[in-house]
Amino acid sequence: MEEVEKILQFMIEVDKLKAVLRKSRPVGLERYENSAEHSWHVCVSALMLYPYANEPVDINRVIRMLLIHDLGEIDAGDKIIYASETVAQKREEAAGVQRLLNLLPAAVDDDYLALWMEFEAGESADAKFAKAVDRIPPLLHNIHDEGRGWKENNITKEMVFGLNSKRISAGSTKIWSAVEAWLEKAVADGIL
Amino acid sequence: MEEVEKILQFMIEVDKLKAVLRKSRPVGLERYENSAEHSWHVCVSALMLYPYANEPVDINRVIRMLLIHDLGEIDAGDKIIYASETVAQKREEAAGVQRLLNLLPAAVDDDYLALWMEFEAGESADAKFAKAVDRIPPLLHNIHDEGRGWKENNITKEMVFGLNSKRISAGSTKIWSAVEAWLEKAVADGIL
Repeated sequence: MEEVEKILQFMIEVDKLKAVLRKSRPVGLERYENSAEHSWHVCVSALMLYPYANEPVDINRVIRMLLIHDLGEIDAGDKIIYASETVAQKREEAAGVQRLLNLLPAAVDDDYLALWMEFEAGESADAKFAKAVDRIPPLLHNIHDEGRGWKENNITKEMVFGLNSKRISAGSTKIWSAVEAWLEKAVADGIL
Repeated sequence: MEEVEKILQFMIEVDKLKAVLRKSRPVGLERYENSAEHSWHVCVSALMLYPYANEPVDINRVIRMLLIHDLGEIDAGDKIIYASETVAQKREEAAGVQRLLNLLPAAVDDDYLALWMEFEAGESADAKFAKAVDRIPPLLHNIHDEGRGWKENNITKEMVFGLNSKRISAGSTKIWSAVEAWLEKAVADGIL
């Protein structure tokens, strides 16, 4: 019961991911997306998309990665992808993940920190696919929102294609082909 | 690419779960919780709590269940648990889940409807545990929020203990013991 008690405290603490705001708006909504609902969205998406990964992936590990991938933002906050991949930001997020995992009973701690780090490194097949899926929703949001998030953050066509072509095609060239077609239409429509 | 295209459309459609509001507030926030962020929260929670299930569970199936368990609310809306378990509500939710799954390539369709129905039936070990975890966050929210959700919806102590003792202990008597202690403290503190 003492262990369950610790997990209930962990549940209360990770609930705060719902207060971390991202830079795009969910389909049809005026408010910004938060990192908890985003995490759900990428998990459901990965579940449907994994047959199209470049390499075979363990979808159960991918989903675990995506469930925890943003936990570091509770302490570190969310930064837009085009500015977030700095050593300082990642160090702060890692410390945040560690703090949360320390709330748990000892047995589960290290596994999830290792999984978080594997996602961040983006080198394994599972991590490459997870990182590819993580990139899709903000693109869909911007496409459905007249590019508002891009405009608000001065994100250019070159930045969008540069980062996402690399990141998404590393996980799945098939998914990138479909997303690329949508982005090209966004350019043609003048919203990117 | 045509199949990936269908999944991107599915992603846009399920994004609308972020607009479905529940009846309690996330820890520290004034706004109501939505069903997408709730779905993430119960998945992370299940991942940490499953060693305490009454019967051995397949955590990967449990997480899939919890990822999709509220999808029917996009069409049917959310009802508070104490009023939601009617045949009409469940029929409407099932039709909503089916509509979303119909957007997907044929191969994945039926599996997820069966999984959703298994969750709703709540008879298998996986479903009993998933339904137990699903009940915990609103209790934690109410406890941390002076029982506001309970008061706003005229939920009595008898209703809270009646439904949750049964539902949570069916999945895990250990978890129920810990939650029950928190609820008894809430009663002693006069918030339930």
